[in-house]
Amino acid sequence: MKANKTQITRWAQGAQPLSQLDELAEEEPLEIQVDTRSVCVTMRTPGHDEELAAGFLFTEGLITERRQVLKIQRHPRNELGNVLNVFLNGVAVDFAQLTRHVFASSSCGLCGKATIQAVHRRFKPIRTKWPVRAETLLALPAQLRSAQEAFGRTGGLHAAAIFSSGGKLIVVREDVGRHNAVDKVLGYGLLRGLLPFNRHILMVSGRASFEIVQKAVAARVPVVAAISAPSSLAVQLASESGQTLAGFVRGDRLNVYSGRERIRF
Amino acid sequence: MKANKTQITRWAQGAQPLSQLDELAEEEPLEIQVDTRSVCVTMRTPGHDEELAAGFLFTEGLITERRQVLKIQRHPRNELGNVLNVFLNGVAVDFAQLTRHVFASSSCGLCGKATIQAVHRRFKPIRTKWPVRAETLLALPAQLRSAQEAFGRTGGLHAAAIFSSGGKLIVVREDVGRHNAVDKVLGYGLLRGLLPFNRHILMVSGRASFEIVQKAVAARVPVVAAISAPSSLAVQLASESGQTLAGFVRGDRLNVYSGRERIRF
Repeated sequence: MKANKTQITRWAQGAQPLSQLDELAEEEPLEIQVDTRSVCVTMRTPGHDEELAAGFLFTEGLITERRQVLKIQRHPRNELGNVLNVFLNGVAVDFAQLTRHVFASSSCGLCGKATIQAVHRRFKPIRTKWPVRAETLLALPAQLRSAQEAFGRTGGLHAAAIFSSGGKLIVVREDVGRHNAVDKVLGYGLLRGLLPFNRHILMVSGRASFEIVQKAVAARVPVVAAISAPSSLAVQLASESGQTLAGFVRGDRLNVYSGRERIRF
Repeated sequence: MKANKTQITRWAQGAQPLSQLDELAEEEPLEIQVDTRSVCVTMRTPGHDEELAAGFLFTEGLITERRQVLKIQRHPRNELGNVLNVFLNGVAVDFAQLTRHVFASSSCGLCGKATIQAVHRRFKPIRTKWPVRAETLLALPAQLRSAQEAFGRTGGLHAAAIFSSGGKLIVVREDVGRHNAVDKVLGYGLLRGLLPFNRHILMVSGRASFEIVQKAVAARVPVVAAISAPSSLAVQLASESGQTLAGFVRGDRLNVYSGRERIRF
């Protein structure tokens, strides 16, 4: 994980301000191109960009399998490596859909319900009943933290990780954008042929929003766990997608918002 | 602030799982239309939607003044109020630009530096030298928290607030999206004719990203304070925009990342 050193002023009440060198979480734009056409510019933490691009195209429903990705390469004219070209194999790309917001609306009927239906038109609900022990979920935050190399240094990064249903860490990624961290772990799975993650747990370091749960549905992840609160629409989507959603997984406690039947207390 | 009640399972290690009613931070899509054309769909916490729409159009550089907004109304065919129409007065709208990512790139030269230059082509750097006491910044988080009605209930919302340079609270808004919370406080300023906020402080409850600082530049806010860490690009943009950026404003401590000359220790 690259970090960025900068001179800051540190101050505590009653003391003199001190000039010190500090590390920042790096944020840079990434433009994702498909067959040389721009489809997305996202602010991200540089690193694992191929995974981010693959994960983004996968969670947007554009690609479904490893073999559809012919190659991913840096744009030769961007020396900073902030433009990435994904060449696809036998995929008819609806560019109009991609450059619009994906789960956008007809002009009547825009609501959470319609948004969930739009997700389900693309990704079916999840039926697997594989159980997970509640104790296993409690052990994940400590594993996530210890795997987050950069977190201790900058305090500025979201993390996402995939664990086996038994609690074994498969992959962890960090990013200034929570959705990017999730795209990176799922892109890792796609590029290494590990998908679907259908006996797995997705853990995120912060809150669980609609977008996080939607990406989990795309990768067939049955259990999503978050250290903070989920939103109403995240709970609704998880519930209607047959997923287990746990929140406030901290210390010796957790809340289960949907799919309680998978949890062994 | 609306909240959403749901039945959850609460569990602490060694105890029996309990079924309880809990409140969730509400998340619903909002489609923003300009003169009946869709320009954006964002996931947001319902409430203060007119401010969100006005703030979004303002921070994207599409409108600059209150009088350019003719009226804002709900789409009559969306009963849930999730489609908002902004009618503009004498503004030539570049829809192609809006439906692309705004600070997107030419295909060579995409980097943080170019992104900052793109912001500065639209919004000039800030020259005001109005001072702020460090003690004033330390007092803001407690004010922000006590003003956040919903926060204690759900733990799931970002907050943004505008304070006077003396530390008086002007407006606070919450949202599941941090950028939405900022658009709401700036939209409040625009719709009430309070802009520019050029002797003010923008405080955010979490991290400070590039996007947050960019929105502050649009509203001419000279001081941005965050409870958590800023990103590298946030610091760079603040520095090149002549803004003061403070982070980790917690308890009796804070860090200053740029524009230290405004702070009176």
